[in-house]
Amino acid sequence: MNQDYIKPDNWSILEEGFDVDRVESSESLFSLGNGAMGQRANFEEQYSGSTFQGSYIAGVYYPDKTKVGWWKNGYPEYFAKVLNAPNWIGINVLINGEALDLYKCKEVRDFRRELNMKEGWYDRSFTAVMPNDLEVSVKVTRFLSIERNELGAINYDVQVLNADATVVFEPYIDSGITNEDANWEEKFWEVQEVKTDEHKAFITSKTLKTEFFATVFMQSQMFKDGKVEEIEPSEVIFDEKISFRYTTEAKKGETVSLQKFAGYVTDMNHNREDLIFAAKNVLDKAVAAGYETILQEQKAAWAGIWEMADISIQGDVKAQQGIRFNIFQLNQTYLGEDARLNIGPKGFTGEKYGGSTYWDTEAYCIPFYMATKDQHVARNLLTYRYNQLDKAIENAKKLGFTNGAALYPMVTMNGEESHNEWEITFEEIHRNGAMVVAIKRYVDYTGDFSYIPEKGLEVMIAIARFWHQRANYSNQKNKYVILGVTGPNEYENNVNNNWYTNYIAKWCIDYCLESIARVKEQYAIDHDRVMSATSLSSEEMAAWKEVADKMYFPYSEEYQVYLQQDNFLDKEIIPVSDLSKTQRPINQKWSWDRILRSCYIKQADVLQGFYFFEDDFSKEELEKHFDFYEPLTVHESSLSPCVHSIQAAALDRMDQAYQFYLRTSRLDLDDYNNEVKEGCHITSMAGTWMSIVEGFGGMRIKEGKLFFAPKIPNGWESFSFKVNFRNQILKVNVAPGKTSFALEGTDSLEIMVNGKPLKVEPNNLVSI
Amino acid sequence: MNQDYIKPDNWSILEEGFDVDRVESSESLFSLGNGAMGQRANFEEQYSGSTFQGSYIAGVYYPDKTKVGWWKNGYPEYFAKVLNAPNWIGINVLINGEALDLYKCKEVRDFRRELNMKEGWYDRSFTAVMPNDLEVSVKVTRFLSIERNELGAINYDVQVLNADATVVFEPYIDSGITNEDANWEEKFWEVQEVKTDEHKAFITSKTLKTEFFATVFMQSQMFKDGKVEEIEPSEVIFDEKISFRYTTEAKKGETVSLQKFAGYVTDMNHNREDLIFAAKNVLDKAVAAGYETILQEQKAAWAGIWEMADISIQGDVKAQQGIRFNIFQLNQTYLGEDARLNIGPKGFTGEKYGGSTYWDTEAYCIPFYMATKDQHVARNLLTYRYNQLDKAIENAKKLGFTNGAALYPMVTMNGEESHNEWEITFEEIHRNGAMVVAIKRYVDYTGDFSYIPEKGLEVMIAIARFWHQRANYSNQKNKYVILGVTGPNEYENNVNNNWYTNYIAKWCIDYCLESIARVKEQYAIDHDRVMSATSLSSEEMAAWKEVADKMYFPYSEEYQVYLQQDNFLDKEIIPVSDLSKTQRPINQKWSWDRILRSCYIKQADVLQGFYFFEDDFSKEELEKHFDFYEPLTVHESSLSPCVHSIQAAALDRMDQAYQFYLRTSRLDLDDYNNEVKEGCHITSMAGTWMSIVEGFGGMRIKEGKLFFAPKIPNGWESFSFKVNFRNQILKVNVAPGKTSFALEGTDSLEIMVNGKPLKVEPNNLVSI
Repeated sequence: MNQDYIKPDNWSILEEGFDVDRVESSESLFSLGNGAMGQRANFEEQYSGSTFQGSYIAGVYYPDKTKVGWWKNGYPEYFAKVLNAPNWIGINVLINGEALDLYKCKEVRDFRRELNMKEGWYDRSFTAVMPNDLEVSVKVTRFLSIERNELGAINYDVQVLNADATVVFEPYIDSGITNEDANWEEKFWEVQEVKTDEHKAFITSKTLKTEFFATVFMQSQMFKDGKVEEIEPSEVIFDEKISFRYTTEAKKGETVSLQKFAGYVTDMNHNREDLIFAAKNVLDKAVAAGYETILQEQKAAWAGIWEMADISIQGDVKAQQGIRFNIFQLNQTYLGEDARLNIGPKGFTGEKYGGSTYWDTEAYCIPFYMATKDQHVARNLLTYRYNQLDKAIENAKKLGFTNGAALYPMVTMNGEESHNEWEITFEEIHRNGAMVVAIKRYVDYTGDFSYIPEKGLEVMIAIARFWHQRANYSNQKNKYVILGVTGPNEYENNVNNNWYTNYIAKWCIDYCLESIARVKEQYAIDHDRVMSATSLSSEEMAAWKEVADKMYFPYSEEYQVYLQQDNFLDKEIIPVSDLSKTQRPINQKWSWDRILRSCYIKQADVLQGFYFFEDDFSKEELEKHFDFYEPLTVHESSLSPCVHSIQAAALDRMDQAYQFYLRTSRLDLDDYNNEVKEGCHITSMAGTWMSIVEGFGGMRIKEGKLFFAPKIPNGWESFSFKVNFRNQILKVNVAPGKTSFALEGTDSLEIMVNGKPLKVEPNNLVSI
Repeated sequence: MNQDYIKPDNWSILEEGFDVDRVESSESLFSLGNGAMGQRANFEEQYSGSTFQGSYIAGVYYPDKTKVGWWKNGYPEYFAKVLNAPNWIGINVLINGEALDLYKCKEVRDFRRELNMKEGWYDRSFTAVMPNDLEVSVKVTRFLSIERNELGAINYDVQVLNADATVVFEPYIDSGITNEDANWEEKFWEVQEVKTDEHKAFITSKTLKTEFFATVFMQSQMFKDGKVEEIEPSEVIFDEKISFRYTTEAKKGETVSLQKFAGYVTDMNHNREDLIFAAKNVLDKAVAAGYETILQEQKAAWAGIWEMADISIQGDVKAQQGIRFNIFQLNQTYLGEDARLNIGPKGFTGEKYGGSTYWDTEAYCIPFYMATKDQHVARNLLTYRYNQLDKAIENAKKLGFTNGAALYPMVTMNGEESHNEWEITFEEIHRNGAMVVAIKRYVDYTGDFSYIPEKGLEVMIAIARFWHQRANYSNQKNKYVILGVTGPNEYENNVNNNWYTNYIAKWCIDYCLESIARVKEQYAIDHDRVMSATSLSSEEMAAWKEVADKMYFPYSEEYQVYLQQDNFLDKEIIPVSDLSKTQRPINQKWSWDRILRSCYIKQADVLQGFYFFEDDFSKEELEKHFDFYEPLTVHESSLSPCVHSIQAAALDRMDQAYQFYLRTSRLDLDDYNNEVKEGCHITSMAGTWMSIVEGFGGMRIKEGKLFFAPKIPNGWESFSFKVNFRNQILKVNVAPGKTSFALEGTDSLEIMVNGKPLKVEPNNLVSI
């Protein structure tokens, strides 16, 4: 943890001072993305210190051959890796023949980074004394265009402060890159074509095995004191790299600049044979528009995003900075327009974990996208899973399931399972339930039931089949049991009757049967189509219902709580508060077996069920379960604090709710787990949004209506957020003792506030 | 499975006919070893077909960097690999300039292998038509000397049948070898010195990391029609290889031969600087004695081994061949004279599994060595673990245990854990119990209690400490429980209260406390030494006793059986006989999660406890448990059939006992699991011996006396075995209705036969 590293600011992430040990962490925090591509905040110029190079193209992956110690039947043969893509940010800077390299400078002062979240750009400046004693002042601005999502731009200013000097800029593109995370240290890219054309450079590479074709391109322009320098660069062309060399004589104090446009075009969006043509087109348009115009576009685009997505907090800068960082990163990662893409756990900030899609999307991210974007964005996310249904069926088949049962993968890029720990891959099956929860949430929130007859029902049937087959009847319990699972709490493996899993299994079946009935009534054609495509009989449905009706739920009479799993109470129950700080985090301090047999919980497990199915339980029950489980929870998953924050708020424990909020919102900024250098925790950032909107705002949907129960942490003057509810934009502002609602548009909206109905008229602020 | 491949024979393993697809399997079956070194039956001459090259030196290993998919805290960083050692068997044969290579010959006929177990040699002969149309007849004999355990010998005869020809023998030694099983494809050996001296060649190499130094050496001599040919070979010296080239003109039909002496000397037995000197010494003595003399020595040495170890069976050649193969391989692997060595699971027949020591040694191998060797051999095996106690304590410490608690490793070479699957490494803790069972068996069998005060007690205390710490009190059960374990049945992982584990844990504590009391009474000085060295207090012992007295044992009232683990009865219980053959072996057909939640048992688990602690249960209880568990057992571990054979015999189910006997004794010969090419299952071979002696012979030790309850499978005329019981050699011959006992030496022996006492006088056959 490092609470003082990032300077508090309402709209920017700020770093001041140069610390070689922080470079990799800052590379994560200052990452840029525009939904289609992204990159860590690596330096443009040469840097010989420790760095973790990362440029990524959304949807482009490599199936790396699985590496395991001990092979188990059923493991996937490949792991879909997030790919480090060709580098286009590189600009070597030579002054009087010596390369600028911050690691080698005699002195670095006034080093400052700013990630301006409001306007969507990243800026770095410093003054350095080079080994040759030249003192240079540098300022670099970079952004990835939201409007032109194949384009990025860099403006690199250099002033030599203590002499006239020869300044060389050497912008380059480089496809000779490797992955940090490669099982067998193989290269993932193969260069197809290296080409220059006037001041433009292109390298077309393809990924091995998956054969994605991507052309990385660039074009640069030199300036002196803001005026174009028409210089003919010399070209240096290697097998996998092209650099252009711009040389000029700079007077002492004179600003020489390089503007570089660059980016990728891929065969996901163009014909392979047209890639270089497409790249030229991007560059020609960029050059024609000019850097300043494109930067203005960028500011406007981000203004548009913030207009809808912003949460403002008055009276707590760190809390404000945290939530905006979370919202900013979510939007950098996924903008929702491309149904082929999803929300990778590290977004464009690192490679760790691989794959682009986890149950995080359904369990944590959908509410954010549903409320801050047009509703087709959430539908795209659902459709993504619908499109991968065949693969999920194939996945279940590999594990011995039949009859079209589906098991969605733990980690995936293209629908195939990529994970290979048996206790997760094969056993953390509750993920299947989240797919259905997401469908229900979507339908409840948007009112768009049509998704179910059109697509969702097939997914739900395949999942119900899975649960039906996965449960077995215990003669001993006279109930259906689900043996050998891992719940959301990954600190227990291969347990029996994980309550959350059993509960969601039963719920999936019930909700599927309910939906089938409604579809039959209201969408007869779809009903017939789906029944016939799935060969679903009433006998089979009756068999499902038998399992759902007779599902076993472990319960403790003594504690009056549902048990996380059958044998939970055989454990020694010692609250986390009694655990020495030297023993934590237990995932770094304890051997795995010790963690497994301890009572400590990584993230909400029973409480995750209480979060999803809140309405099935009373507040007293929630309180009992929260009081039983939270004290045993170590929150060593990024997905843990947000759920607990929401529940603490529901229980009116605002201090605790606030602490959890800070932990979720500043997890990466304050580096709680000392790992931010590997990348940011993107998916849990949507949980941060929920902890304000659902936690403090108390927003719920019931029977097609918005409910609020606003609360505000101590010390906050106010906070406000906006939601898009069925195409009506409602802005909510919460201050101590006073909540105001403002509605855009023309129609009024009836909402419920603290249990009472309230009619909000358009363009007419109401406060209570 | 391949029942007809190896030809039945009482004393030899025979292969007839050349099949390229069987080469690797036969390389395993025809392996040679002399306790100090061993090798797969690779061809001496070039072979370009599929082959698995393996030469091994006992005790020489390499700590290969661990490879895992997902690192878990507590995993060992290194895995001690069995090392493929420099090759000394190589003899290239060129005829008229063309290399003899069976894979390339136009025809191979009369191909025959014989492993003569009685005399300890291996012979291969064939006639082949080479691509150059020369027809050659070859006969090669090879053995590893038991008497001179650094020496091996080869006699290679060639006749060219259809022409006069130039025959070249190119004997070589080669240190440029790799392991089949290497995590990172690294080389494990580094050559130190390559040297020739007259007709001798030496290569000294060291293993990386472990720095074992080994010199591989050779010296050859050419013969023509049995007479020495004095030829000056030409030398070819490479960086890691030396070959000598002997060229001669052979007449059509004339036999030209090469005799090669070769082997290893290592710094385990010599000073590093003396290795080449020691190797010369071995060669000089061998040359002086001559091939024939050394072969005679070999025959005499094996006669000596068989004199004590043989089990003869009349009336069932396949059964006879099976048991002799098992006894032969055990003696090839470990002769018991070197306390630094142990019994690797593949012996010298392959690399798989790595490490040299598993709980197999204590649970399966010790009875065989105890009964067929001098009793110091079993003591050496116990001492091996005593010598590794510090490492076992360190291993437990890594997992969070304190106060000198010890966890013996799952797999080891030097006492350090080498295994890295959490569900085995950290959870299969029952292995600790086998260490103590072996001590008790040793004391009971030999009457040598002194091992306990001298060494065993410290081991037992450290193990009792482990069990005491590993159990925890369950408030729910008001008993001590042991959570998160894997029992002997590795088809269940991370279960709670595995009955076998809980039982052996309690037993270890009880037996330790009992032993402490006896040591206190009879060995006061040792008692004080051990108590002071271990700082063991009476309070601590009382705490142990509390755990032992209140240990929980899952039990089913309904079935009247102890349950394999807490939730066993939640599983669907379907006997193996109802499982389709297409689903078996389940470890090849089912995904791991499916295996885990099935009721199928890999090997004796509850029944393993009934085997070790037979006297604690009635025959009716054994029958109930056998009838409950055996039908659920798939016997997919080599260690399974022998225990079931013994118990079936105890229950007078001789047909079943015989089927299990065949399965254990011919597991490799008939390749039941289609995997013999990876090597033979050495440790389970001791179980085969037990299934005759303890199963059919019904031999037990109770209160210092030998008990027998002889039975004989249908169709057998008789079987006989010998045991060394407290330095008295008793020979037992069992025929239908008649058992005879013969005693060597001068003292009489009182034994119990079918519950009745019988006095056996020396040199006086008694029958009943």
